[in-house]
Order: sequence, then C-alpha cells, then structure tokens
Amino acid sequence: MGHKDIPIGTGATGTRTETDAIGAIDVPADHYWGAQTQRSIVHFDIGDDLMPRALYHAYGLVKKAAALVNAEAGRLEPDLADAVVRAADEVASGALDAEFPLHVWQSGSGTQSNMNVNEVIANRASQLLGGELGTGRLVHPNDHVNLGQSTNDGFPTAMHLATLLAVRERTVPQVEALADTIGRKAREWVDVVKIGRTHLQDATPLTVGQEWSGWESQLRDALARLDQSLQAVGALAVGGTAVGTGINAPDGFGDAVALKLTELTGTALISAPNKFAALGSLDGMVAVSAGLRGVAVALMKAANDMRWLASGPRAGLHELRLPENEPGSSIMPGKVNPTQQEATVMVCLQVIGEDAIVAAAGSQGTFQLNTMRPIVIANVLHSARLLGDAAGHLRVHSVEGIELDRDRIASHVDRSLMLVTALSPHIGYDRAAAIAHKADHEGTTLREAAIALGVEAADFDRIVDPATMVGDPRRDLGL
Amino acid sequence: MGHKDIPIGTGATGTRTETDAIGAIDVPADHYWGAQTQRSIVHFDIGDDLMPRALYHAYGLVKKAAALVNAEAGRLEPDLADAVVRAADEVASGALDAEFPLHVWQSGSGTQSNMNVNEVIANRASQLLGGELGTGRLVHPNDHVNLGQSTNDGFPTAMHLATLLAVRERTVPQVEALADTIGRKAREWVDVVKIGRTHLQDATPLTVGQEWSGWESQLRDALARLDQSLQAVGALAVGGTAVGTGINAPDGFGDAVALKLTELTGTALISAPNKFAALGSLDGMVAVSAGLRGVAVALMKAANDMRWLASGPRAGLHELRLPENEPGSSIMPGKVNPTQQEATVMVCLQVIGEDAIVAAAGSQGTFQLNTMRPIVIANVLHSARLLGDAAGHLRVHSVEGIELDRDRIASHVDRSLMLVTALSPHIGYDRAAAIAHKADHEGTTLREAAIALGVEAADFDRIVDPATMVGDPRRDLGL
Amino acid sequence: MGHKDIPIGTGATGTRTETDAIGAIDVPADHYWGAQTQRSIVHFDIGDDLMPRALYHAYGLVKKAAALVNAEAGRLEPDLADAVVRAADEVASGALDAEFPLHVWQSGSGTQSNMNVNEVIANRASQLLGGELGTGRLVHPNDHVNLGQSTNDGFPTAMHLATLLAVRERTVPQVEALADTIGRKAREWVDVVKIGRTHLQDATPLTVGQEWSGWESQLRDALARLDQSLQAVGALAVGGTAVGTGINAPDGFGDAVALKLTELTGTALISAPNKFAALGSLDGMVAVSAGLRGVAVALMKAANDMRWLASGPRAGLHELRLPENEPGSSIMPGKVNPTQQEATVMVCLQVIGEDAIVAAAGSQGTFQLNTMRPIVIANVLHSARLLGDAAGHLRVHSVEGIELDRDRIASHVDRSLMLVTALSPHIGYDRAAAIAHKADHEGTTLREAAIALGVEAADFDRIVDPATMVGDPRRDLGL
Amino acid sequence: MGHKDIPIGTGATGTRTETDAIGAIDVPADHYWGAQTQRSIVHFDIGDDLMPRALYHAYGLVKKAAALVNAEAGRLEPDLADAVVRAADEVASGALDAEFPLHVWQSGSGTQSNMNVNEVIANRASQLLGGELGTGRLVHPNDHVNLGQSTNDGFPTAMHLATLLAVRERTVPQVEALADTIGRKAREWVDVVKIGRTHLQDATPLTVGQEWSGWESQLRDALARLDQSLQAVGALAVGGTAVGTGINAPDGFGDAVALKLTELTGTALISAPNKFAALGSLDGMVAVSAGLRGVAVALMKAANDMRWLASGPRAGLHELRLPENEPGSSIMPGKVNPTQQEATVMVCLQVIGEDAIVAAAGSQGTFQLNTMRPIVIANVLHSARLLGDAAGHLRVHSVEGIELDRDRIASHVDRSLMLVTALSPHIGYDRAAAIAHKADHEGTTLREAAIALGVEAADFDRIVDPATMVGDPRRDLGL
Repeated sequence: MGHKDIPIGTGATGTRTETDAIGAIDVPADHYWGAQTQRSIVHFDIGDDLMPRALYHAYGLVKKAAALVNAEAGRLEPDLADAVVRAADEVASGALDAEFPLHVWQSGSGTQSNMNVNEVIANRASQLLGGELGTGRLVHPNDHVNLGQSTNDGFPTAMHLATLLAVRERTVPQVEALADTIGRKAREWVDVVKIGRTHLQDATPLTVGQEWSGWESQLRDALARLDQSLQAVGALAVGGTAVGTGINAPDGFGDAVALKLTELTGTALISAPNKFAALGSLDGMVAVSAGLRGVAVALMKAANDMRWLASGPRAGLHELRLPENEPGSSIMPGKVNPTQQEATVMVCLQVIGEDAIVAAAGSQGTFQLNTMRPIVIANVLHSARLLGDAAGHLRVHSVEGIELDRDRIASHVDRSLMLVTALSPHIGYDRAAAIAHKADHEGTTLREAAIALGVEAADFDRIVDPATMVGDPRRDLGL
Repeated sequence: MGHKDIPIGTGATGTRTETDAIGAIDVPADHYWGAQTQRSIVHFDIGDDLMPRALYHAYGLVKKAAALVNAEAGRLEPDLADAVVRAADEVASGALDAEFPLHVWQSGSGTQSNMNVNEVIANRASQLLGGELGTGRLVHPNDHVNLGQSTNDGFPTAMHLATLLAVRERTVPQVEALADTIGRKAREWVDVVKIGRTHLQDATPLTVGQEWSGWESQLRDALARLDQSLQAVGALAVGGTAVGTGINAPDGFGDAVALKLTELTGTALISAPNKFAALGSLDGMVAVSAGLRGVAVALMKAANDMRWLASGPRAGLHELRLPENEPGSSIMPGKVNPTQQEATVMVCLQVIGEDAIVAAAGSQGTFQLNTMRPIVIANVLHSARLLGDAAGHLRVHSVEGIELDRDRIASHVDRSLMLVTALSPHIGYDRAAAIAHKADHEGTTLREAAIALGVEAADFDRIVDPATMVGDPRRDLGL
Repeated sequence: MGHKDIPIGTGATGTRTETDAIGAIDVPADHYWGAQTQRSIVHFDIGDDLMPRALYHAYGLVKKAAALVNAEAGRLEPDLADAVVRAADEVASGALDAEFPLHVWQSGSGTQSNMNVNEVIANRASQLLGGELGTGRLVHPNDHVNLGQSTNDGFPTAMHLATLLAVRERTVPQVEALADTIGRKAREWVDVVKIGRTHLQDATPLTVGQEWSGWESQLRDALARLDQSLQAVGALAVGGTAVGTGINAPDGFGDAVALKLTELTGTALISAPNKFAALGSLDGMVAVSAGLRGVAVALMKAANDMRWLASGPRAGLHELRLPENEPGSSIMPGKVNPTQQEATVMVCLQVIGEDAIVAAAGSQGTFQLNTMRPIVIANVLHSARLLGDAAGHLRVHSVEGIELDRDRIASHVDRSLMLVTALSPHIGYDRAAAIAHKADHEGTTLREAAIALGVEAADFDRIVDPATMVGDPRRDLGL
Repeated sequence: MGHKDIPIGTGATGTRTETDAIGAIDVPADHYWGAQTQRSIVHFDIGDDLMPRALYHAYGLVKKAAALVNAEAGRLEPDLADAVVRAADEVASGALDAEFPLHVWQSGSGTQSNMNVNEVIANRASQLLGGELGTGRLVHPNDHVNLGQSTNDGFPTAMHLATLLAVRERTVPQVEALADTIGRKAREWVDVVKIGRTHLQDATPLTVGQEWSGWESQLRDALARLDQSLQAVGALAVGGTAVGTGINAPDGFGDAVALKLTELTGTALISAPNKFAALGSLDGMVAVSAGLRGVAVALMKAANDMRWLASGPRAGLHELRLPENEPGSSIMPGKVNPTQQEATVMVCLQVIGEDAIVAAAGSQGTFQLNTMRPIVIANVLHSARLLGDAAGHLRVHSVEGIELDRDRIASHVDRSLMLVTALSPHIGYDRAAAIAHKADHEGTTLREAAIALGVEAADFDRIVDPATMVGDPRRDLGL
C-alpha cells in the first residue's frame, strides 16, 4: 500500500482555493471541505441546526461500500479505492465530524451534504496518498468518490442506514433497559395489593406488580413494532442514481453495494425493488418515525402515571417515592419534583410532534424526487436520540430508585369503598350498597360501616380480602 | 310582487331531466338541485361527511346580497331579483337544508357546492315565480344567481361569513357562559383556603377562588384572542371572481356586496384589499382556527384540573364533588366518573388536531387558488360547533353542580408540610426544617412534630395560619 | 327454539319507562334503548358526530361471542343465550343501526355506548322471547348481555374488531384495486419515454411506466405495512374486565371469547397477553392509525403528481389527460379540473391529521384506563372509511380513464437539454456543455445547437437516443 | 462603586466545591455555575439541545430589573445590587453564554435554568465585588439574585420577554424585508400580463405584479397577526412567585418589575392581571406560536409558487428564472434547482409542526403550574429564528435575483384557450366555444382556429387583448 499514513487534520493556516462549476472560492485551509460546501455555508446559514453527525457516519459507510464495489469491478484503481476507503472509515468513525459544517436547511435532496462528504473524502484521500488538497488533488469528489452514485440515490441510502443504526444502537437498547427495570420492579412487587383507578376514580384493586407489568408490556410491544418498522429502511435507493433508472450506474451496482453494506454493518440490507418509489418517496422514513412515535406514546403514559402516583407527599396519591436528585425546595422537605418524568413527557411530546413533521414532509414529494429529505432525517435522528437518552436517564436517575410508600398504598386499599363488592354475594346487593353509602356519607371505613350495620367483624375480615380480588398476579407476570 | 307564494318543497315524484355543459341527467323530481349537483353525488360519494349546513346558510346570505346589489345596479330585473332573494332567504334560514346533499370531499374550490346553491336557488326562485324547474326554468343558476361571481371568490366569501357567524353564535356565547359560571364559583369560594400544587407536588396554599379565577382568566383571554382572530375573516374575497382580477364583475361589486352583507348581518365586513391573496390563500381561516385552538388549549387545562381535583373519592384528591349524571357503577356508591370533563378533553384534542389539519391545508395553495377549501371549512365549523357545545354541556351538566369537599380540602391544608414556611422567620430555618423532616418521617402533622420539638401549641396555632399565606384573594378576584 | 320470530322494530308509540340506578326515565316507545342511553342523549348532545356504526356492528359480534361462551359454560340459559345471540346478530348486521343514537363525545371509556348495546340487545332479545321491553324484560342488560364483561375490556375489544374489519373490508380492497389499476397502466405505458423531473427541474428521462410503477410500489408497500399494523389490534382486551385483573370474569373467559370471535370472523384473534396494557393504553389503535397514515402519505404523492402532470392544457405540463366528469368551465374547453385528485389530497390531509389526533389521545391514558377511546375509534374508523372511498373514487372516476398526451410527452423529451449527457462520451464534456448552453440561450433544440456547432445530424440522431437512457423499464416492472 | 472591575472569565483551573441543599459537589473552576447546575448536567444529559441562549439573555434583563426594584425599595444593599446588575448585564449581552450548559429536557418548570442564572450571576457578582466563588461568595443565588422571585414566575417572565424580543428582532424584520422585496418586484412587473392558473389549470390572465402582490399581501397580513399575537406575551408572571399568590414577594413587586423591564427594553410590558393563569398556563406562548405559524403558512405558499413557476427550463412552466447559487449539474446548463425555496418550505413545515408541539404542551398544565415550559420556549424560539433566517436567505439569495422569462410568459398567454372569453360577447358563446374546441383538438392557437372559422384577423387582434382582461393592476398595487 503506497499511501502515506498522515494523522487526521491538515494543520494548515489561511485559506486555499477550491473550484467547482461556478468557479473558484476560498476555503479555510485547515478544513477538508471544498467549493460546494463553502458555498452552502454562505447560502444556507439558517438557524443553528447542523445536519446530524449520525448521517455523515452512515454516509462514510456508503462511500466505503461503493468504493469497494467499484474497486472489485475494476472501475476504481486499487490505490485510489484504498485511500477513499480509509478516508471514508474516518468519516464513519466520527473522526472527521468537524469537517461537516452544513445546515439542515439546504437543498431538499441533500446535494450539498453529499458533496460535502465527497469533497472531504477526496481531499483526505488525496492527503493520504501524499497528494495535495484542492484543485490538484489526486482523488476527485465526483469521478471517484461519487462514482456510480447520485445524491438522489446516495442520500436516501445514507438516511436509511443512519436511521437503522441510530434506532438499533441508541433508541432500542435504552428503552429495552427501561422495560427490563420496570419488569424487575413489577416482579419484586407482584404481590403488593393496591387500589385500581379508572376514570381517575377508585376502582377494584390490583397489585403494584400488575400495574407495572402494564407499562413494561406497552414498552415491549412498542419496541417490537419499532423493530418491525425498521424493515422499511432496510431497502436502499442505491443504484437508482438520478431518477431511478440507474443511469450512469453499472448493472447490479445497487445490489452489490447493498450486499457490501450488509457485510460492513452486520445488518441485512437490500437494494430497493422499485427505485422510482425509493427516490420519489420517503415512506420508509415515515414508517420508522411512526415506530418511534409508538414508543413515545407508551413511554409518556408510564411517565405520567409515575409522577401522579408520586404526587403529594401529603395532598396527593403518593404511592411511590421517587429518588431525590436535586433540591426540590429549601423549605419543604419531601418535595421531590418528578423532574425525570417531566423531562420524559416533554421528550415524548417532541417525538410525537416531530413524527407529524416527518409525515407532512413525506407527503410533499413530486415526480422523481421528494426534496424534503433534510427535514426528515434531522427529525427522525433527533427523535431516535432523544427517546433513547430520555429512557436511559429516566431509568438510571428515577425508576431504579423508586420505592413504595406501603403505608399509603395499604391505606388506600383499606379505605376504599370498592371492596364492598366482595360482600355482595354474601349479604345481598342492597345491604352491601347500604354499607357503602353509609361509609361514604359518614367518611368511615367500609369495615366500620359494615359492623355498624350488623356484619360480624370476623365475617368482614374473612370475606373482604383485597388479595383475592386481584386475580392471579403471578400468572400475569409469568412467574 | 308578482311572484306566487308557493310553500317550500316540490311535492313531485319520479325524476326530471336537468342539463349542464356535459349533457342531460335525471334528478329526483322532489328536489331542487340540478345537473351539476347530481353529478357530484355520484362522483364524490366519499365517506359520510356532508358539507356543513352552516356554510350553505351563509351562502344564502351571499347570494341574497349579490342579487340585491345586482338589482340596485339594474343588472338583474326586479322580479327575478326578488325571487332569488326569497329563495336565498330560504337557503339562509335552513328551510332548504335537505337540498344540499354534497360531500365535503369534492372539488377543492367548492365549485360543486356553489353550483348546488345556484341550482337550488334558481329552481326554487323559478317556482316562486310560477315557472318550471329544470331546463325551462325562469331563473338561471349561472346568469342570474351567480351573476358577477365565481366559485373562486364566492365560496371563500361564504366560508368567511359562515365562520364568523358560527364562532359568534355557537362558540363564544357558550364559552363565555362557562367562564361566567366558573367566575361565579370563584367568587363564592374566594376565601376557602386549599393546598397549592406545583409539579403535582404539594406547594404553598391558595384559595379555591384563586384557583378557579385562573381557569376563568384563561378562558376569557382565549376568547379575546378568538374575537381578535375574527378580523381575519371580516375581509371577503367577493369581487375577485376567477383569479382575483375581478373579470366579469362590475367595478365596485366587491365593495357593494360587502356593504350589503354588513347590513344583512349587522357585522362589519369589507371587501378584501388584495384579491389575489384572498383567492390564493386560506390564511384568514387558519388564523381563526388558531383562535379556536387557543380556547381548546385553555379549556382542556380546566377540564383536566377538575377531573383530577374530583378524583377519589377515597384514594384520590377529591377536593371537588361532581354532579352524578349517570350511574357510575351499580356496586360502588360515590364512583362519579368525570364524564363531562372527559368528553370536553376529547373535544379539545379534536379541535387542536383539526387546527393542525387546517394549517396543513392552508399551506397547500398554488398560484391563483388554494384548492383545499372544503377540508378547511369543514374542520373549522366542526371545531367551532364542538367547542361551543362541549363548553355548554360541561357548564350545565357539571360545573354548575360542582360542590366542595371542604373536609378534604381542610385536611390537605392541615396535613401539609409546606406550612412550615411560616415558622421559619420565628424559629429559624434549621429548626423549621427539622420539624418538617420529623413530620414527614413519622407521618404526623406539622403541629404534632412542632410541639414534639418544643414549639408551644399556642405559638404554632398563632403563627402557622394558611389564611395569611394566600395573599389577597379578594383583590385578585376584583372584589 | 321457544322464542317468537318477531320482525325487527317495536312499532310502539309514545314512551315507556326504563330505569337504572339513578331512577326512572321515559324512553321513546318505538326504540329498544333503555335508561342509560336516554340519559346520555341529554347529557352528551355535543355536535353531530354519532359513534360510528361499524363499532356497533363489531360490538354485536362481541356480545354474541360472549353469550355463546357463557352458554357453553352453563352460565347463561340456552334460551336466553339464543335470544341474545339473535339480537346480537341483528346489531352486527346493521339492522338495528337506528337504535344507537349516542354521540362520540361521551364517557371516555365508552360506557354509554356499551350500555346502549346491552340495553338494545336485552330489550330486543326479550321481545324475541315474547317478553316485554323495559323494567319487566326477560333479559337483563348487565346480568345477561354484559355477563363476564365490563365496558373497560369490552369496548376496546369492539374497537379492535371494528378497526380490523373496517381496514380489511373498506380500506385495503379499494387501495389495492387502485394499485392494480395504476400497475396495469404502468405496464401499458412501460415503453413511453418521458422526461424525468427532480427538484421540479428537467432531469434525465424515464418511461411513463416506470413513473407509474413508483406510485404502485409506494401504495403496495404502504398496504403491506398497514396489514402488518393490524397485528396490533388482533389482541383483545376481553377477559380483563374492570381493571385488567379479570374480576368477575371466569377463568379463561378472554381466551374463549377470542377463540369464538376467531370462528365468527375467520380472522385470527387472541386474548391480549397483558390486560393492564390492553385497558390502560390504546397503543394498538395508534399503530393501525400509523398504518393508515402511511397509505395517505403515499396516496397523496400519487394524486399530487397526477394533477401536476395533467396541468395545462397549454400553460402546464399536460402529459396526462384526465377524464372530464363535470363541467370545468362553460367558456373554456379543455379546462378539466383535477377534482378527484383534489378530493383525494384533502382526504389524505385529513387522515394524516386524524392520525395525529389518535396519537395525542393515545398518550393520555392514566392508571388502569385510557379514557380517550371514543375519539380514537371515531377518528380511526373515519380515516379507514375515507381512505378506502377516496381510493375507489379516484380509481373509477379518474385513473381508469387517464390518457397520455403523447405529443406533449415527446415534445418535452425532444426539447430537453438533459439529453446532451449522451453526447458527452463522444465529443467531450466541454463541447457538449457548449451545445447545451447554446440551446438554452437561443431557445433552440439540442439537435439544432449540436448541428450548428458541427455535430453531424446523423451522428446526433444515432447517439442522442432517450430510449437508451431509461435503463430497463420492462425489468423494472417485472415484465 | 466599591466593586473591582474584573474581566469576564475566571481563568481558574481544576475544580471548586459548590454546595446546595443536597450537599457538596465539584464544579469546573473556570465556570461560574454552581451546584444545582452541575447536578443538572449529569441528570439531564439528554440529546444535544441546550436551552436557547436568547432565553438567558432575557433572563439577564429580568434579574437586572428585579435587582434594581429591590435596591430602590431598600431590600437589597446598593453595592450588592450594583454587582448583580453588572453581572446580569453580562448575561443579557451574551458575554456569559458559555456559562449556561443545561439541556432543554430538564425540570418542566425550568428550575434548573433559573438556578443556573442565579448561580452564575451570584458568582460573577461576587467576583466583581472582589469576593470568592462558591461557598464563600458575597452574593447569594437565592437570597439576593432570586429575591422576590420563584422559578415559577421568573421563568415564564423570561420566556415571554425572550419571545417578544426574538420575534421583534429576528423574525419580523426579515419577513418584512422579504415582503418589501416582493412588493418592489410586484410594482416593477405590474403590467406584465401572464396566464392565471386555478386548480393548476390555465385560467384567465393576470399580471405578474398582481400575482406577486398576493404573496406580499399574505406576508404582511401574517405579520400583522403575528404582531398582534405579541400582546399575549406582554403580560408577565413576575410577582406571582410560587403558586400565583405572590407569597414572599413584596406587594407591588410584579408591577414594579414590569415597569422596570418596560424602561430597559423600550417595550410596553405589564404584570399579568391573573397570576394563577400566568403560572398555570402557557397560553400566551401558544398564541405567539400561532402567529409564527401564520407566517409559515403564507411563506410556504409563496416559496412553492416560486419553485413551480421556475420549473423547467424546457419541460416546466419556467416563467421565472432563479439565480444560480451553486452548481446544479455539471452536464446540464440551465438546471438551477430552487434550493432556497426548498429550504424555505422545509423551514415552514418545521415551524408548522413545532407550533403543534407547542399547542400540545400548552394543553398539559396541571393545577398551579404548566411544567412543559422548556419544550415550549425551545420550540418557539427555534421557530422564530428559523423563520427569520429563512426569509432573509430566500430574499438575498433568490428573490432579489429573480428574473422573468418574458418569452415564456408571453407564449403561455398567447397559446391560452382562455382568451376566447373575450370573443364571446362579439360572436356568441357557441361560435367561441367551437373555436376553442378546434384549437384544443388541433393543437393550434386560438387565433389560428378563429381565423379558420371565419373571424377576421384584424377583429381577433383588436378584441382578444389579454391586457384588458386583467382588471386594473396598478390600482390593485396602489400605484
């Protein structure tokens, strides 16, 4: 291998001249990007949102796979291919993150970010080969790095890959770990009887374990659907080039790159069966976005339940005690604000809302291209990241440390009027109802009212047993 | 007045033939609509959603105003004009509601509903003049009823008018009445001290009146903004005809019709200053939709607070007692489900969501027309109706009958650890904190803990007075 | 079979008295509903939206299955069970549609609609048995019709079943038929070369068949995802009763009813593994809603493309000729408005927006119940219906009749500057670019410019062949 | 003035110990933040979104105003107040931006960001006074910087102020400048007759100036509504403290701070009349968000129209020529992608979607607090920024350089069949229609068809004059 091993970074100062079809333009000499990137910095300096790093990491893999395929087919010289692969690896690893300065709000096809990748890899590869940067470079952004590709098929390929990796690596494990923790708590508290609540009103009892198993089950079902949704991004646009016909790409190029990416990522990927849909739509992204939203909907319910169950400590439900991570108030001991749950709820609202943005953008395709790609990838990766991070923080900083206020839980069961249900078969509905009414009216316990209306204390204690009203919690939890 | 006074309704049986540019078509003989309406019934039989009645009522006023203006300018013969006006009055009154069978999902300009109005008025006016229905009618749908108008300016004119009237007549009065009732309750309970809650956690006290004044204030502010938003639909497209240039409408026609509609409705209306915006956009509708959404956001908060405050009766907050409108459960006395509040919350979610639909549709205009009109008017009128109805039902069937559970309210204040705040200046923060911690730990009242730690009972009772911690509730309520 | 065969309908006049836990109330004598239904009519007269018929049809099946299971287990006498089953069949068939007057905006659990079903079946079954309606009836709404069930598990069971049937029977076949028609057209026009468009700008060519195959592919992929999403509603809440513990339901009741429903519907259904999630969430509904949205996103793109491709006839693209279903304008022949496409786009926007409502409602569960059920089922069934109907109308009234304007298509290809790409390998990039520039500047065809710059006409005609730039359309379409 | 003038920045290395109610914690010595900030960094390291800088700038003003009011009332010693004011000025100026490391996804009240501000100002003020940082500092975050305030009233005060300033300074001027530019172009092209388009289909003509005036008018109306919406955030929560009662704030504190902020900002601000609404809701923010959305809806229409009108160059409408900012394609001269318009459309979709997030969050208040504040301020400021930036870039990099393709415009008018309308009054509808049909069928111009059917060429040229069909464009534009 003839190329030199040069540490990442140019170390240069001042500017160098880069050119494109529009002409020459000065570029900071200590950066690898070229003319088209530089133009975009000026033309699209909109807000603070940069195209997400994770997209570029995936793009690095796409460029590497393309170079390998091109090299194997003899379309790219081994030396050049090797340098491109090494530079692409650096892009994929995040080592060149600082070389991607472009904003989300740019060309709707993602052209400028594709050229940013091409330019950075071309210059970096040239440097690795001992060549210059800029005009005289040994590797060409279009002819070599972009060989057989167009932004129109390459960008959605990178979108799909980035989404798949982000969801698999950042979202799923954290939500799964949260579900695991909730499930462990559910099993720990499988037998703790508590009052049920429907319409926010007292209802028949269940156990804490049963309640928590509901949250776990929601999260696991949502994760299963999210996983299923990932099939939609496992089909890649690569090979379709400009409009889906594959013009300028060799026959079989899409299949070969998909296979190569399968090898590189260990994830089964295919070349999309219909390239006109693959370029003209963002439907796969919309599907994954719905999968993320499904997790948010489930997570939001659990987080809301938790903060309500921890409400109080005196004038709320307070069946749960949350860990105290930060000062609630300097004067009120026990005021533990459910801040992790609040952050989680906000993240869920954001994810649900970003999903709607993705769907709206997904509907705006025209003819051979949907030019709403940057907004879609930015929102999907943002949501995937937020969901994972929020689930992780909720778990570590709150759920793992949650404890029961068993006295309060018992008192709620004890004071409930719902337990009268159990008396009904023994003393008749009318007498049972009279007991419940009396307790409600006079603010007493059911037991007091029952005894006052002639039920033997021993009978009451034998018959009115909440533990027999919860069904079979251990079976419900698979124990 | 030469026309005959014929009762509404044709009384005919079978079918009659109507014609339009496409040709002849059979129409049910007992209906006034014509060929274009009949075609639309077939072509757009999508779902069950009919174009809202309120739109046709407003369209009746528009057709009447146009006829009067045309007659005054000598463009329409007095007899014809008079018959058109009478028929239009019948449309406006709802007497001909059964004559408007078309679906929401039709031509994006609303053409078919405009022709439905034109055809019904033409046939009915011909009947009033003693003429036939159909081909031989004395009044022409286009030449007479649509004179000086196009669907493109007439439909948005009717949309604006219908929206204005619906919001003023159906939404605002009901929400205002709800705010009034809430305000009355606030004043009634201005001095009832209760525990405050922030982050769902116990906080310093306020009075029930202060809490309810917050809901009232939110609703009134939202109503003020809704009222302000109506300015946006007070400007009418009429006079712009096909593309905004006013082709085929006489000079000043828009101003004259707006003035006439002002007289007819008692509402200040103007001809839109820029007709290209008036036809090409639905921005005014989007603005009113935001106004409706603002009410929904405020109302949802109040409804949610109410159902939480009524939660229980034993294992919830239960500071409020809601009226029992229907059986909660046959075995659980006191289980009063907050069904009015639930219905209200659902309505608010629907309104918030329909507003997003309106905004999305509002963004889809192209060139000289936004062809998303039917979806916009259907959603806005639906939201306006639902909001008003829900507010009315919530008021009559729940809020008016809400009572306080004063024991529970007092007990929450009594047991609160927050009151320790008042001791702080007298015994120092550290001792106060120790008292609060002791009470929290041992589950006692603050008073018990304070006395146990050496505070004189008399001192405690003098100093720890929640009533002095609520500021000036009467001033807050303007009493 | 002891019961009498009485035709549906009571034929009575005036009112009869029905009673519930609140007391007695007059009910129209010619209707089967009872006291709780009657109260709800008064308390929830909000807007015009009635609970969808399709929900009641599914509820009929649920009640039938429960009665059969109860009868088989000996919990319900054969005669009673038989009458309940017959009445439930009538509910399921739609024969009793007029007996379900309740609004969507009611109790968030759907209690009132469940009681409506129970009351109607009880009275109707009593009538079938020769008994009275009302107080003296032979069949009890709760003890018999609701046996082993609660609204809390029964209503979501009916929701899931109704959704499954509606999507399978109303949505999927129509969208599939549309995809079939689009696919047939794609194959018909597989070889018609046309200009591609990316960023709305002229791009390299493809064939009409390829373009249409993209729409077909989007729709089929969306349908596959919709079908997959239905798994989420194949798990039923039945058996969970009040809070998920199954209180008052016999062991195995959920499994038995799910099995019975599987037999009745021919669709594989299971009892939800975790009943706490099944009652506390609406996640399955949110998932199907996303599936419907996915179809809407795909369909909206196709409908938009069609109306743009038909734009003109003179000052637009006009590659497609849409059938003329209704008069466009009395003065402008050829003005065929793309009204079916407009209606379709509006339906898609509505479905996308209603999906957001469903997700928002799905996130609002609390503890053992999500009380946002009516808004969710109303929106999902509405969307399922609209999508199917719109797809059907678009197909029949537009797509089937679409024709190509082959002259225009050819002219666009002919005049395109993009074809210069083919010359590049032969005469070099610079000369090719000069030709393109010249043509652009002078408004000539490429051929003219090429010949002017020295290319032989014969060479041009041989080399610049759009048909060779479209890849392999027949392979793309599987021909 | 006793304090020392120390340059911003601590210059320290390593860590120092800070303490709060939870205990001691190490903080980077070169930062001003304290213990609570440091804890939040750990507990809420969710995603990459930092609380927006603009919020802290506004918070600086709030802290300054509070210190001045407290000093004037003698509650804060002059020296301390002066140091706090200087430090607050630094916060407001952005000089201390690096001291605010907290994420958006934190406590729903914004407590941690409030404490971040308090800690930074306390340490910086202490430094300015020559004191230490951390435990021994001369200025206390709570007792001095937060004097008379709570997060619960202070944070929404800063939210309102930040929103007001961001919309006034970043959004409005840029959108206004865009409207100005569009208006200037409208006047420049007031007389250029072009074909109108409704339903995407050719319609009667208008002038380019009229068309552009529609966009200008939409933007100006939307701006007027946005400006009106700002009233909603001119009322400040300050003075309400913990729950709205004003506990621990001196009488009149809210009014005094609002007055002081009015002086500091030159913007009329008031203390919110009802503090329970001010703390418990985010309705004012929801209203401004709707105002921003209104601009996005209008802007999206203009941007979409522009890119369609520029479509082509050969196979599209191509009435407009957009400036070429970056290479479209290396082989296709004239392929100028409408990238600025695409970026604008994406920004508009994002703003419309973020508005829905704001409304959802706004609906989730409970009791005395809406704990969805961070998500609301983050989205509103993000939208305000994006809209302004996008409008600015669209103007500078595209609209200012747009030119007309007058040949194409003329050819569209020339070839239009719509002009036949003008013949109708002269030769009768039937003959006119025959001419149009003939032209349509044979693909000729109207003129050719008219002459073929017997109209004199001179008559045709005299009568069929598009310029007379556009009404009065100069009057429409106020010229």
